[in-house]
Amino acid sequence: MHSMITNEYKEIVENKKGKVDVTPIANFFRNEIKEQITKIGGKPRMVAFLTTDDQGALDYSKWTKIACNKDGIEFILKRIERVDLEDAIIEANQDDDVHGIMVYYPVFGGMLDSYLQDVISPEKDVEGLSTTNRFNLYHNIRYLDKEMTKKCVIPCTPLAIVKIIEQLGIYRENVELGQALVGKEITIINRSEIVGRPLAAMLANDGAIVYSIDINGIIMFEAGKRYGTIKMVETKITKEEAMLKSQVLILGVPSPNYKVNSDLIKEGTVVINFAGCLNVDEDIDSKTILVPTIGKVTIAMLERNLMRLYNNQRLKKTLPPQDQLNQYQYYH
Amino acid sequence: MHSMITNEYKEIVENKKGKVDVTPIANFFRNEIKEQITKIGGKPRMVAFLTTDDQGALDYSKWTKIACNKDGIEFILKRIERVDLEDAIIEANQDDDVHGIMVYYPVFGGMLDSYLQDVISPEKDVEGLSTTNRFNLYHNIRYLDKEMTKKCVIPCTPLAIVKIIEQLGIYRENVELGQALVGKEITIINRSEIVGRPLAAMLANDGAIVYSIDINGIIMFEAGKRYGTIKMVETKITKEEAMLKSQVLILGVPSPNYKVNSDLIKEGTVVINFAGCLNVDEDIDSKTILVPTIGKVTIAMLERNLMRLYNNQRLKKTLPPQDQLNQYQYYH
Repeated sequence: MHSMITNEYKEIVENKKGKVDVTPIANFFRNEIKEQITKIGGKPRMVAFLTTDDQGALDYSKWTKIACNKDGIEFILKRIERVDLEDAIIEANQDDDVHGIMVYYPVFGGMLDSYLQDVISPEKDVEGLSTTNRFNLYHNIRYLDKEMTKKCVIPCTPLAIVKIIEQLGIYRENVELGQALVGKEITIINRSEIVGRPLAAMLANDGAIVYSIDINGIIMFEAGKRYGTIKMVETKITKEEAMLKSQVLILGVPSPNYKVNSDLIKEGTVVINFAGCLNVDEDIDSKTILVPTIGKVTIAMLERNLMRLYNNQRLKKTLPPQDQLNQYQYYH
Repeated sequence: MHSMITNEYKEIVENKKGKVDVTPIANFFRNEIKEQITKIGGKPRMVAFLTTDDQGALDYSKWTKIACNKDGIEFILKRIERVDLEDAIIEANQDDDVHGIMVYYPVFGGMLDSYLQDVISPEKDVEGLSTTNRFNLYHNIRYLDKEMTKKCVIPCTPLAIVKIIEQLGIYRENVELGQALVGKEITIINRSEIVGRPLAAMLANDGAIVYSIDINGIIMFEAGKRYGTIKMVETKITKEEAMLKSQVLILGVPSPNYKVNSDLIKEGTVVINFAGCLNVDEDIDSKTILVPTIGKVTIAMLERNLMRLYNNQRLKKTLPPQDQLNQYQYYH
């Protein structure tokens, strides 16, 4: 799983500098998905709700549709008034022909959007943003149900970033579970529940020390006592110190005005930018490995999550009706 | 239920002006609770987690403890590091001697706090802030379980505000369900998921037109087609127009600098302020009914919610173990 899926980056990894185009990584996963769909037949279907005229979201939905259609997935964009969104989500939850549901945020903004994330059934939560799927990620719970028939999905942007890091020579190979990033320090500038915190948890799970930075300060993430759980730790380290110690720097500040000072990034660092805009000077690739955008891999992970949900739902139909009702939440 | 529980406010209601002290309303509900506890015996227990030195939260916890102890409820304040809070909540979820759990927010701030609200089991969510309890409120789902043995709780600040409005001559008596506020217009300046939106939903359920205002604009709330459901509607009305049309104005902006211009509030309006600071000039009581603080009733509703959870959990022990596992969520 951690081995190189392409030779594309060999030179960049050896030289510890250069700009990375993630297309080969996306293609690798998309080919796997395409083959799987060809094999099992059927028509996995994803519905995406858009409530605004945001050009970024429109563009992203176009690319997603093109990729999905090429790979055998039906992608339906539904434009809808924001006040009608909740009802539309509930309808899609109940529609057996819909296997995955996503929403382009912001809709209302703030906590109401967080509420809407949880109206999507965890069983159709293709982006992995529902509290249930996030809780399960943080607590190493792999299944939505007691019977262990429905695998959880992982938020797709953090998943994409982990897949990219795996290809850039950071993970140690042939080590025990939870050991692949032992000794590594990673700084993430973003602690959202959508990307930054799930990502910190995933990297800490593999043994890294993660400095998670947002406007309120820095929190350290480490592996917990049991594999798959995490520990948050207060720290007095500064942002500058954290960046200078890190072998990987992950940037996700959604503002074109936010740029990290290049002097704070040491040579050979892997710099991954997932914000819509570049949070670092473009010429940083002369001394570091720069991944300026990750969108293509995110779309591949979205497809991957959809296939997981599709398979969960195919399986569900073979279970007796009683078990379909028991959507047990482990954590309560 | 809507009838006056005290004659205290008769003059104020008739004159349509004056300052309201909510103590008699709080005492009415607390006396009910005290009697119930005396009757059933037992020791309902609530645990409150505090992760900061915030003086406001400390003061509020002291008042809550005094009220609870007087009424027969054990209130335990646990001071804890924020990084340890999630584990502590999970432990309290699993502790059969704890019937209700609350947290003083902010802890980390932002979406992480929203996540923590959902780590509290809906069965012990004494403040009614979990997504499950809020979803159920918005969709008129009254029970947490399929067997209809565990009643949902309603967020306690909105519940307190409804109880106060009921005492100030706004509700029509002896009308059908969902009709008591027909013809009334109400403005709420706050659309948080903790107070403003659940409150808008509750008032819309009873037939009011609610103008829900936050920094992003105005949304109208009306009763949905089925009783107990709500409809959000886009509107072009301005904040000033909304306030001038309203018989009730509810203020919850957590900033001492935010004051509504008194000229925008018509004579006889019921003005309820639930922010920690007063969002209106204090002398507005010369032309309106002013409720400057509601904290005492909120504490009474917290106790009331705890009793509901306590009774749910007493009942649960008499159910066969299999049924205890089926924590079914209706909406997925």
